[in-house]
Amino acid sequence: MALTWTKLVFLRRLGCRWSPLSVAAQHLCNDANIQIAEEVAKLLELKAQIGDVGTNQKFILKTPKGTRDYNPKQMAIREGVFKTIVDSFKRHGAETLDTPVFELKETLTGKYGEDSKLIYDLKDQGGELLSLRYDLTVPFARYLAMNKINRIKRYHIAKVYRRDNPAMTRGRYREFYQCDFDIAGQYDPMIPDAECVKIVHEILTNLGLGDFVIKVNHREILDGMFEVCGVPADKFRTICSSVDKLDKTFWEDVREEMIEEKGLDPATADNIGQYVKMNGGLELVEQLLQDPLLPTSKAAKQGLEGMRTLLKYCQIFGVLDKVSFDLSLARGLDYYTGVIYEAVLKGSEMLPTKTGEQVGVGSVAGGGRYDGLVGMFDPKGKQVPCVGVSIGIERVFSIMEAKAQAKAEKIRTTETDVLVASGQRDMLEERLKLCTELWDAGIKAEMIYKKNPKMLNQFQLAETTGIPLIAVIGEAELKNGTVTLRNMETRAEEQIPRADLISVIKERCRQISSS
Amino acid sequence: MALTWTKLVFLRRLGCRWSPLSVAAQHLCNDANIQIAEEVAKLLELKAQIGDVGTNQKFILKTPKGTRDYNPKQMAIREGVFKTIVDSFKRHGAETLDTPVFELKETLTGKYGEDSKLIYDLKDQGGELLSLRYDLTVPFARYLAMNKINRIKRYHIAKVYRRDNPAMTRGRYREFYQCDFDIAGQYDPMIPDAECVKIVHEILTNLGLGDFVIKVNHREILDGMFEVCGVPADKFRTICSSVDKLDKTFWEDVREEMIEEKGLDPATADNIGQYVKMNGGLELVEQLLQDPLLPTSKAAKQGLEGMRTLLKYCQIFGVLDKVSFDLSLARGLDYYTGVIYEAVLKGSEMLPTKTGEQVGVGSVAGGGRYDGLVGMFDPKGKQVPCVGVSIGIERVFSIMEAKAQAKAEKIRTTETDVLVASGQRDMLEERLKLCTELWDAGIKAEMIYKKNPKMLNQFQLAETTGIPLIAVIGEAELKNGTVTLRNMETRAEEQIPRADLISVIKERCRQISSS
Repeated sequence: MALTWTKLVFLRRLGCRWSPLSVAAQHLCNDANIQIAEEVAKLLELKAQIGDVGTNQKFILKTPKGTRDYNPKQMAIREGVFKTIVDSFKRHGAETLDTPVFELKETLTGKYGEDSKLIYDLKDQGGELLSLRYDLTVPFARYLAMNKINRIKRYHIAKVYRRDNPAMTRGRYREFYQCDFDIAGQYDPMIPDAECVKIVHEILTNLGLGDFVIKVNHREILDGMFEVCGVPADKFRTICSSVDKLDKTFWEDVREEMIEEKGLDPATADNIGQYVKMNGGLELVEQLLQDPLLPTSKAAKQGLEGMRTLLKYCQIFGVLDKVSFDLSLARGLDYYTGVIYEAVLKGSEMLPTKTGEQVGVGSVAGGGRYDGLVGMFDPKGKQVPCVGVSIGIERVFSIMEAKAQAKAEKIRTTETDVLVASGQRDMLEERLKLCTELWDAGIKAEMIYKKNPKMLNQFQLAETTGIPLIAVIGEAELKNGTVTLRNMETRAEEQIPRADLISVIKERCRQISSS
Repeated sequence: MALTWTKLVFLRRLGCRWSPLSVAAQHLCNDANIQIAEEVAKLLELKAQIGDVGTNQKFILKTPKGTRDYNPKQMAIREGVFKTIVDSFKRHGAETLDTPVFELKETLTGKYGEDSKLIYDLKDQGGELLSLRYDLTVPFARYLAMNKINRIKRYHIAKVYRRDNPAMTRGRYREFYQCDFDIAGQYDPMIPDAECVKIVHEILTNLGLGDFVIKVNHREILDGMFEVCGVPADKFRTICSSVDKLDKTFWEDVREEMIEEKGLDPATADNIGQYVKMNGGLELVEQLLQDPLLPTSKAAKQGLEGMRTLLKYCQIFGVLDKVSFDLSLARGLDYYTGVIYEAVLKGSEMLPTKTGEQVGVGSVAGGGRYDGLVGMFDPKGKQVPCVGVSIGIERVFSIMEAKAQAKAEKIRTTETDVLVASGQRDMLEERLKLCTELWDAGIKAEMIYKKNPKMLNQFQLAETTGIPLIAVIGEAELKNGTVTLRNMETRAEEQIPRADLISVIKERCRQISSS
């Protein structure tokens, strides 16, 4: 595609990086198309605002593109999912830590290959140049190097940021949670690597999302494969990025990209095509170790032997049935050096292909070994070998939400035990007093913030929010020194002496929660 | 101070907003000084980097200015603090929700008065213009307007961002947590407002941070005070910002700022000085209602009557002893319309003043009523009255950390119950098998990721990380179908038949945790 000078100037204005020696024209256009689409969206928004002049609203009432709020019901689901995940991390002895949402820009530089363009930068307002974190792995490596830690097993649950094209119905956001588990330290081969597979297996099983497969591959097998297929060494990374697209698109398209865009020899591409079709278990490892071509690469041979060990440990952990050694798995990030993982839900949304086959898009976890990353931060280049997995839970949330809706489950968003109520006028101070008694005894209690609320409204509040008990006071109760306690489900009412109220409520709550 | 043209150009280049009609020269210089300091820091960093050329480190290994990592021990403390706070929020019937870390820039515009300059903007990379959230209140108001919610009681715990001058030893950061509790809805006066005071009281009491005072004031009392003292109406907000500094600086300095910088008449400033010295309880409200000047303002009279109601409810809630009606309390944010709060730890770090008096700097919570904020977002300007408090817990973390260090408490950072170990060679697969059994039964277990670890190293790991039990296997145990279970504290060892292992471990864990 020919690029005119005017177009180039326009592209530069849009912030395209331009290096005439290294960037293919078509690639540049792809980058530019995303940015043009965004500029158009911006103009449309401006137009919408102009249309609104005259009303009070001076701007669009929305969250930024690719982000969302969580309402209380979604939060209840989210907290349940987090608990399942954290329970598993803790069962395997992990500590937790936290890092800032932004890092020095240079901390992230050179870690993400072609994905670097998706990093959010902060505006230069004087001071350091900052970027929002793109994942939790690079901040973890920075933390290890900065604190000279060479052994830790930690989890980190936090939001990360990618200026990607969002597909929110499929759980793909620009702000999303990652739940990372990583093991740093010099250990014997594949033991921590296999524990990561075990953890993913545990979490996906406990979340009850249906059948899944954990794909595994090895950077050295990929590199060896590229080597024996005839890929020039300086193209390993970019060809790896192409292979990485095989989970979302088809071999024909990937092949075309390799040849047209990245200048690969068609025969070399076809060689790669033969290998990336393969997946299996221990028998595939043995088969490939007997392959006439692949083990001629030292890297591939080492990788295959590592894979054999990994699968053996997975067998002992009782998870081998869900593991698939898959030569098409090639995560794009630059920093992986050994095993790589990706877990996919089976039977999740499928994209029908031109040829009738189906491509799953349900990746819910990924990770791998990155032995060189910490050394990139250490002043003396000291290495700390690391391996880890990241649970991409936005998709999990989407599925859990859909499930909850389908079951029409009533999800409580508060934990209130008692509503303090009265059907009579001028009881505000008495209700305030009773609430104070309950709160001070550690009981979860609420009241309506009105001087004289209607009894019906108070019953309705308890009903709609699922509060199990109502404590009613009025003239009669005050005179008798009692409170009327009503069970919302059974409609039973009992007169409780004020002095016994706390212990009776606690007893009733125990009965209700165990029933 | 005279400003040359060159200096002005320089200041503009630094990003200073410049409006010759409204900004005093000295104010501009203050802004510029912060930015100059940052530019100098940036240059020093660059210099340090150049000095490092030749080593592997191409950049400074640090977190961004004003931010920090949390290590596992700090996380353990943090999680304990969060639990106390969330328990209190839930005790009062709150739901929770979450919003993105950034908002459209225009969502934040015009909400923070003079503090707006502290907002972090994201770089324009094509697309929407975004800013990091400055607090959780504005995103909450945006959420209510966007979803047309006119009644909710919610809490939100998340990080907010302010490009302020950090003072990290005093717990002042650029990235810090806020724990917000807010009540939205049309209710009878001061009932939810008083519950917010109750909640702050509960949380500060339960955190055990020592004595504290919850200062309260009212926007209408402040406005009325400015009115009767002779402040021109268009200067209310900026004079309010000056009064806001009284918790950190001295009346003489605030007076000077009012007169020199903001052009207030000295007599007017002295009038204000008489009022802002006052603090007390219900008796001060009654005294001021009898004041010859203050109740001549309708706003002040209304505010004082509201204050009387608030303090009465605080009395019923049993918290009045910690509440101080303080006329110097004047939170700077533009959006407050009614009651304002600020909780301060007594006996926390004090700054001795020129005159020998002391000024506390221990603010740990703040908030107020903001009835107009949601209407700023609603297309038709529909109002939703809101009141809330925000617990600023970075300072609380600092205190808790110092306490933990002083007590030399051993804080466990993992929850592992059992270390699976062996003193013999070639037991790796057996250890893996035993771990699998324990994990699959829900027991928290770990092992060292080595083929043949030394027994001593395994004991040391259990010792240093506080793992209470060790499960030892070897040739003898395998032959007998047993496991040796060792209690790390009592050093007691027992031979457990493999079939009983799970139930025995669960029983031992129960005994240990209850002892």
